[in-house]
Amino acid sequence: MNRENSNSGNEVDGRDIENDESSDSKDTEIYRLSQPLLTKRVNTTSQIAIVGSNVCPIESLDYEIVENDLFNQDWRSRKKIQIFQYVILKWVFAMLIGLLTGLAGIFNNIAVENLSGFKLLLTTNLMTEHKYFMAFFAFAGCNVVLAAAAAALCAFVAPAAAGSGIPEVKAYLNGVDAYSILAPGTLFVKIFGSVLGVSAGFVVGKEGPMVHTGACIASLLGQGGSRKYHLTWKWLRYFKNDRDRRDLITCGAAAGVAAAFRAPVGGVLFALEEAATWWRSALLWRTFFTTAVVAIVLRAFIQLCSTGRCGLFGEGGLIMYDVSAAAVTYSGADIVAVILLGIIGGIFGSLYNYFVDKVLRVYSIINEKGAAFKVLIVIIISLLTSCCAYGLPWFAMCIPCPADASVSCPNTDGSGNYKSFQCPPGYYNDLASLFLNTNDDAIRNLLSTSTAKEFNISTLFIFFVAVFCLGIITYGIAIPSGLFIPVILAGACYGRLVGRLFETISKLDTGLFSLLGAASFLGGTMRMTVSLCVILLELTNDLLLLPLVMLVLLISKSVADIFNKGVYDQIVTLKGFPYMEAHAEPYMRQLAALDVVSGPLVTFSGIEKVGNILHALRTTGHNGFPVIDDPPLSDASELCGLVLRSHLLVLLKGKVFSKDRVLAGEEILGRFAAFDFAKAGSGKGIKVDDLDIEEEEMDMYIDLHPITNTSPYTVVETMSLAKAAILFRQLGLRHMCVVPKSQGRPPIVGILTRHDFMPEHVLGLYPRIKPHK
Amino acid sequence: MNRENSNSGNEVDGRDIENDESSDSKDTEIYRLSQPLLTKRVNTTSQIAIVGSNVCPIESLDYEIVENDLFNQDWRSRKKIQIFQYVILKWVFAMLIGLLTGLAGIFNNIAVENLSGFKLLLTTNLMTEHKYFMAFFAFAGCNVVLAAAAAALCAFVAPAAAGSGIPEVKAYLNGVDAYSILAPGTLFVKIFGSVLGVSAGFVVGKEGPMVHTGACIASLLGQGGSRKYHLTWKWLRYFKNDRDRRDLITCGAAAGVAAAFRAPVGGVLFALEEAATWWRSALLWRTFFTTAVVAIVLRAFIQLCSTGRCGLFGEGGLIMYDVSAAAVTYSGADIVAVILLGIIGGIFGSLYNYFVDKVLRVYSIINEKGAAFKVLIVIIISLLTSCCAYGLPWFAMCIPCPADASVSCPNTDGSGNYKSFQCPPGYYNDLASLFLNTNDDAIRNLLSTSTAKEFNISTLFIFFVAVFCLGIITYGIAIPSGLFIPVILAGACYGRLVGRLFETISKLDTGLFSLLGAASFLGGTMRMTVSLCVILLELTNDLLLLPLVMLVLLISKSVADIFNKGVYDQIVTLKGFPYMEAHAEPYMRQLAALDVVSGPLVTFSGIEKVGNILHALRTTGHNGFPVIDDPPLSDASELCGLVLRSHLLVLLKGKVFSKDRVLAGEEILGRFAAFDFAKAGSGKGIKVDDLDIEEEEMDMYIDLHPITNTSPYTVVETMSLAKAAILFRQLGLRHMCVVPKSQGRPPIVGILTRHDFMPEHVLGLYPRIKPHK
Repeated sequence: MNRENSNSGNEVDGRDIENDESSDSKDTEIYRLSQPLLTKRVNTTSQIAIVGSNVCPIESLDYEIVENDLFNQDWRSRKKIQIFQYVILKWVFAMLIGLLTGLAGIFNNIAVENLSGFKLLLTTNLMTEHKYFMAFFAFAGCNVVLAAAAAALCAFVAPAAAGSGIPEVKAYLNGVDAYSILAPGTLFVKIFGSVLGVSAGFVVGKEGPMVHTGACIASLLGQGGSRKYHLTWKWLRYFKNDRDRRDLITCGAAAGVAAAFRAPVGGVLFALEEAATWWRSALLWRTFFTTAVVAIVLRAFIQLCSTGRCGLFGEGGLIMYDVSAAAVTYSGADIVAVILLGIIGGIFGSLYNYFVDKVLRVYSIINEKGAAFKVLIVIIISLLTSCCAYGLPWFAMCIPCPADASVSCPNTDGSGNYKSFQCPPGYYNDLASLFLNTNDDAIRNLLSTSTAKEFNISTLFIFFVAVFCLGIITYGIAIPSGLFIPVILAGACYGRLVGRLFETISKLDTGLFSLLGAASFLGGTMRMTVSLCVILLELTNDLLLLPLVMLVLLISKSVADIFNKGVYDQIVTLKGFPYMEAHAEPYMRQLAALDVVSGPLVTFSGIEKVGNILHALRTTGHNGFPVIDDPPLSDASELCGLVLRSHLLVLLKGKVFSKDRVLAGEEILGRFAAFDFAKAGSGKGIKVDDLDIEEEEMDMYIDLHPITNTSPYTVVETMSLAKAAILFRQLGLRHMCVVPKSQGRPPIVGILTRHDFMPEHVLGLYPRIKPHK
Repeated sequence: MNRENSNSGNEVDGRDIENDESSDSKDTEIYRLSQPLLTKRVNTTSQIAIVGSNVCPIESLDYEIVENDLFNQDWRSRKKIQIFQYVILKWVFAMLIGLLTGLAGIFNNIAVENLSGFKLLLTTNLMTEHKYFMAFFAFAGCNVVLAAAAAALCAFVAPAAAGSGIPEVKAYLNGVDAYSILAPGTLFVKIFGSVLGVSAGFVVGKEGPMVHTGACIASLLGQGGSRKYHLTWKWLRYFKNDRDRRDLITCGAAAGVAAAFRAPVGGVLFALEEAATWWRSALLWRTFFTTAVVAIVLRAFIQLCSTGRCGLFGEGGLIMYDVSAAAVTYSGADIVAVILLGIIGGIFGSLYNYFVDKVLRVYSIINEKGAAFKVLIVIIISLLTSCCAYGLPWFAMCIPCPADASVSCPNTDGSGNYKSFQCPPGYYNDLASLFLNTNDDAIRNLLSTSTAKEFNISTLFIFFVAVFCLGIITYGIAIPSGLFIPVILAGACYGRLVGRLFETISKLDTGLFSLLGAASFLGGTMRMTVSLCVILLELTNDLLLLPLVMLVLLISKSVADIFNKGVYDQIVTLKGFPYMEAHAEPYMRQLAALDVVSGPLVTFSGIEKVGNILHALRTTGHNGFPVIDDPPLSDASELCGLVLRSHLLVLLKGKVFSKDRVLAGEEILGRFAAFDFAKAGSGKGIKVDDLDIEEEEMDMYIDLHPITNTSPYTVVETMSLAKAAILFRQLGLRHMCVVPKSQGRPPIVGILTRHDFMPEHVLGLYPRIKPHK
């Protein structure tokens, strides 16, 4: 309607335009006005970042709607039925994500319970026959085999599947796509590697991997089908853009938490508080639907598994660690104890982050040496874990079974409370009850209420130290490893320890202390508040404890925030993802947008020589090129808009060239549809090398107007960097044009990308700025 | 650092600049390029909207940081201690909001329970003496007196306190400040009016008023003290801007829900899902802190009140309606029943919204006639309510008391279950148990579990119809009236009715059916999902029901969304607030930013005549004026920035005038500090009429550069309206400059304000556009 280009296109269409020889030199002209201090390339397709041991290309995502002539044509011709299809499909996808993630969660649970159940039963049986060394070899052997299998999958099939996955998902939702992080191979390894890793007895959780699994599932649904496997479908093309993929992956992350903790509301809040960068209320509703589906799937399977055939999965129903049996009454003294618990928990939480960061740096050096080294480290850590788990309980004394125990004591099953270990009948080994169990069961034992004296103080201390250290050295090895469970385990143990120490002056149940301890550690490491609060609520089914949990979370987060960042933010930084923070740094107010623009700026004319475009595509890594209309296409030199590399490649492949400088809008609009320019799935787009341009075609012209986004977001060069950063992040941009303040200058002075806002870049340009001013 | 103005200011400071005679005509020149179809004034200080009966001025809020020279000077000189003060104060305010709102909630509870307890006891005592007519007169008399008091407060003291208050808070957080909506008088009437209204037995709740109360408390804290009462304090000035006030009021809204429902997490989610337009994770944490304070305050008072001296407040602890006693097992048949419940609930919910809208329109016509009419309507509705509450139970039969009742039966206290009414000993009147109670107790009775047969089907039907109708006709009368309780009451009754009808095929407890019915009605009217889910969870303490509650909410919201908007959105529209929706309407893609710009545009020169400024301020209602630098101040005519009306008034009052056209930046920076331009509290700023400009000063000049925001957000005239709208809303702007695409034209073509994005405005300009395309 108001598209100047199409208007002017109609006016001069068909007429020859004088060949402006100066245009050749123009596209490589550098409109650089501020000092070019850094040689670092910005605005490139493939920034390189160190991800663990892997050199991993990063691509920025673009959430801006590209309003070019093709889009407008498509928009005008869009029918109601298409919009309806799109809406239906959105909800179908949300349901599918919930369904598949729920099934993945159930598979994980059943597999882990059966694998480690078998392992523990074998060990226990050998122990009851007093074959103690055999038992150790069986135990450690099973662990090493499982661990090596997980490590091999990770090292050889999909290195991106190692670690938690939450930092990567968080970065993706911020607009940073690390290569292969959401690929099918990664999904496969994440699911099976997580099962093997958790079964191997490592101090790792399945929560992070579940979030990653959910995100992978969502990402695969958003790829628009697969031509290779003939799985294409016309409707799927609606999702071939970064915006819709982002929404799907947000749903996936929520579904992951919902499946891991059986906490549907907690999942939504996790996605909102920790994972997502952009949020709108429509998304709240859709994630809620997804997690509702997860909850229903889980409940159905729990019903099915209640006969006991699925291992331990059936126990506990939707609530994993029910503490609601304990009476919640507390007085002033309890609150003092809880505040102390929160403060110390916060300190330990930030210490945990500190050590995890250090250990990760060490591992990334070792992991770089090759896949074999990765497997080796995993085997070493596995042996260490086995030695701890089997060796340390020998130092614990046998404790007589309580008379009023609600479960059998001593327990000679594979799992459960009151483990017999080496003890005679009627006695149990409290340290073995924690060590020789799955992590889930250990947490359940720690959170058990009305069993104040079950664990000795020394036992709790030993277990706490062991789990705290093992948790730190285990994260970063080449297996899918969640951080929630190690933190909850250490925190619950710490809380119970504090409960035992305060038992003379506090009336709170030690099980509840344990829960509060877990909350304090979670607050101290993860730094979430509302979502953790709801997750803990849903995990433990005790609403009456809510004020205390809130208090502990707030205190531990506040204390830990003094020392360092949250663990996921730390890993995002470590991996080198250019993450856009929600707030602008104070020093950004002292700089203008122009001050951080780094060149060289490559621009195209509205009608450009094919050779020039190809040259620019080959020699630069830029992803967006400003298009400038010069007379006679316009009265004065003006910014027509921005054209994307991927769109240029599609247009060049189509070969709509002309010998002369003429507008060819009609022809291009006839030849292409908007969907031809839809963003291809990860790694599937056309590459420059795929083009097959003849020599004589290099001197021909191509009309860029139909694919030029005529309304890119722009800022004036004098706008403060802080305001520009807020605009950039709030709108989810990939490119932002910086235009001159005064007239009579070239119509664009530079392009800002997310790299230009990174503190390293800005402080590299201006080393004298104090970052914390 | 990069401020062009201050640079050029240094260069030409002190030099006389040639007096450009053409500048006089320039500021009133109209740079209008698109068709001026509408005569409607936009960009004005005081748009008029009909709020109930009141003609109510609306002011837009501005969340943009005004980066002018003063701001930069202040930013550079800002010390660490000041930032520390600001952060500390933010948290202190969050705590104060929680504390005061919690206390307001406790006051409300205690006052209501004692007032209506006295009233009900009086009635019951007269009934046991068989003085039935006396009892009615006592009952209706008390109700009318209380109602008339509430209405008088509302009609004569603060008309803005009528109604729920949530729509107004929602509009405020979207950037629309309706005059006096958060004033001290409104707070006073809201607190006392709500107590009187609820005690008068109306079918109204205290939840909406509590949210409004919390917002008012927060707003008062953010006013920067009061000079009148000598309550000023230097630190408070940090909060004298719209951004910080918005954050405080978000905390206040969360605290309101937390206090009303004793649901701290639900409060945070309510603020996030329903109230707030802008959100960031720092705010999540602060609202969480606020609601934690509310929870702690409530818990402390519940402990204090547990002796029974505070009326019914002490009962139930933090959980208001505990249904956790009921066993939750459900099968396929139950799920079918629940789905049906959700669908019908959604239909009833949207019907409720439809009727509320119609009734509100009727009331607003009547209310316009004067305060006396307002009071009259309230008295009529009060009498009608009394007749229903006292009259209808006579039609119910007496039911023999159950043998295993956990509470005394029949009950002759003021409140509780199993009301005796006219029945002989050993019998109870089930309809009286619902009608002759406070709304809270009626809900508690409806939600009571293991009492399947307590209420007859006919009783439930009569009560449902009565409450549904009374709820509709009560909202909109001149008392503070929440919508949550009427909806929960009707929904719970409807759910129990369905439960009774399905009792042969469903094993779910009727109390749980009642809860699900309430959920379906809430979903159907409010259209929230996650926050309602968590609120219901916190209200009823039953996590196991979570999947069913999620299912019902999703179904009822989906069904109701087919028919109309959520009730709060409907009221926002009805009140004429220019609310910016999160999504751009489809037709906005067909229009460019320029197409909706409506003039006349008034611009100033960088150094402007005092007379011209005064004339512009007097004759237009504009709030922002573009400042244009012409030669010799700049090389070519360029947009220097945007200056705000309030800043102009402060500068004019300071009288830094000069005889000649000279830059006076240094002088102004020396005379003023940034805080002199801080936004005054509601209604406290300088008015044009407060200025006292001499005749000879009218021809003098004033330098606008130091107060000009040099980097306003701009869009190119050809940008689609949809993209402009998203920019406008995401960044919380009040003005957006539209700049020309091509050079050689005036540097600004118009200013967009929120009114320009309203569908009425856009569709008024382009009537042929199909709004739903």
